[in-house]
Amino acid sequence: MTAPAAAGGLAAVNVPAARPPAEARTALRRFSFNQATAKHWPLAEVVAGCVAAGVPGIGLWREPVAEYGLARSAALVRDAGLTVTSLCRGGFFTADDWRDENLRAIDEAAALGTTELVLVSGGLPAGSRDIDGARARVADAIAELAPHARAAGVRLAIEPLHPMFSADRCVIATLGQALDIAERFDPGVVGVVVDAYHVWWDDTVYAQIARAGDRIAAFQVCDWVTPLPEGVLLGRALPGEGCIELRRLREAVDAAGYSGPVEVEVFNAEAWARPGHEVLAASVDGYLRHVV
Amino acid sequence: MTAPAAAGGLAAVNVPAARPPAEARTALRRFSFNQATAKHWPLAEVVAGCVAAGVPGIGLWREPVAEYGLARSAALVRDAGLTVTSLCRGGFFTADDWRDENLRAIDEAAALGTTELVLVSGGLPAGSRDIDGARARVADAIAELAPHARAAGVRLAIEPLHPMFSADRCVIATLGQALDIAERFDPGVVGVVVDAYHVWWDDTVYAQIARAGDRIAAFQVCDWVTPLPEGVLLGRALPGEGCIELRRLREAVDAAGYSGPVEVEVFNAEAWARPGHEVLAASVDGYLRHVV
Repeated sequence: MTAPAAAGGLAAVNVPAARPPAEARTALRRFSFNQATAKHWPLAEVVAGCVAAGVPGIGLWREPVAEYGLARSAALVRDAGLTVTSLCRGGFFTADDWRDENLRAIDEAAALGTTELVLVSGGLPAGSRDIDGARARVADAIAELAPHARAAGVRLAIEPLHPMFSADRCVIATLGQALDIAERFDPGVVGVVVDAYHVWWDDTVYAQIARAGDRIAAFQVCDWVTPLPEGVLLGRALPGEGCIELRRLREAVDAAGYSGPVEVEVFNAEAWARPGHEVLAASVDGYLRHVV
Repeated sequence: MTAPAAAGGLAAVNVPAARPPAEARTALRRFSFNQATAKHWPLAEVVAGCVAAGVPGIGLWREPVAEYGLARSAALVRDAGLTVTSLCRGGFFTADDWRDENLRAIDEAAALGTTELVLVSGGLPAGSRDIDGARARVADAIAELAPHARAAGVRLAIEPLHPMFSADRCVIATLGQALDIAERFDPGVVGVVVDAYHVWWDDTVYAQIARAGDRIAAFQVCDWVTPLPEGVLLGRALPGEGCIELRRLREAVDAAGYSGPVEVEVFNAEAWARPGHEVLAASVDGYLRHVV
């Protein structure tokens, strides 16, 4: 439960060395820091920073994990006492190597000790207008992957992405659509991700959250601000900076029976340019003020 | 049925002076050119260009109409034999002067001889997170406007906008949501706009189009391409350049009983920089190849 790695480096960037008091740890009981929120913060420093801040959970991404080494990453977070709340990401079922990539992603999730593999399903193939076909392919791919996921003890967590990503990132655009697929499977094998940024605009979202129940595999928060930047990927804001009713959504997932972690996951070019520990501190602050 | 205005100017930009043959006029029977597609083309030239191209319908916007003069605009399109297929736009119900503005817009639609006033309902008030409240306000505002619209013979056409505009332009994000409001009123007084760009991603859109039936007040087409530009407003493409199943959507509105005009409405900075008659010709071409 200590932060063995890079302690000198962290001290140099002014991260408190001592663990926070019990009261703060209780308030952060469900908090998880998705490492993409501080994209350029090296994994060992993210882990040490989370420990120092009393953050119990971390959401990991495959690329930085691969860079640090899978077994080494698993040992790092385990030795730090952190819970890996999810691994991003499988999916992209229109890629040629989707099957092998997703089987590997399942194994990586298991190796990291997380039960939740986030799936971003992919957009339309280049030149295609067949959105129904792409959606059918998602369901078929998940059916193919489900046995391996079950055997590995990993849940395939279908993440609906905001409809502005339907063409190029994810043809699954609503929670209802994700559930239409997930419900064909055991809730322990295929679930859904509720990411506030992607679903907040949907007038059916509260009904769909209630419907989701024990299929909610992850709950992620950040905030919506305008104008959206070119490409729209990096337009997310820290919790509380935008117009999403984050607390209401958190209460809704809770009412549906979800008691798992709340991941702060923000993609924002300005945040990525800031020191990681500052972004973590701002994430914690936004979470405490606007989510719990 | 001739093009009296600015004929010299048009000849200078190489628009054919003669009316196209009967066959072409038949193919364009339902085609309407929304003037925002060539935003900087002066109204008199748009009208003359439509006549020269055998285009029977035009979609107008309040601002250029006001600039040219309401009565003068009405006379211009009437004398040219064009049908005004819609007026954009009322709505923006969070503005302080929404009531007076919308009453004026209804009167302007009537004066221009169109039965369809497009409503873009507005986003969240500044600093607000109350999307339910904003949506309730839209329904209340339409209820307030309906008697005046009925008396004027103008239909209030609720346009759902893509959810990427929910925060800042329109809290009505799906056709289903628009219909939930419209169905409280007489179909001749409150209808819906089906704009392919805003609804194509929705897995329920074909069911909602069937539900809409005689409430379909307008059908608009353009295409979806990525990456989206900053602010996302001007990212639309001409029909056929993107990934939307335009013909399938047109067939669906037809099957729902709609036999009205098909408006090409494209907001694109590059198109706006081109000569208007080129954009009109490209719109006609995209329509003939990808919509009818």
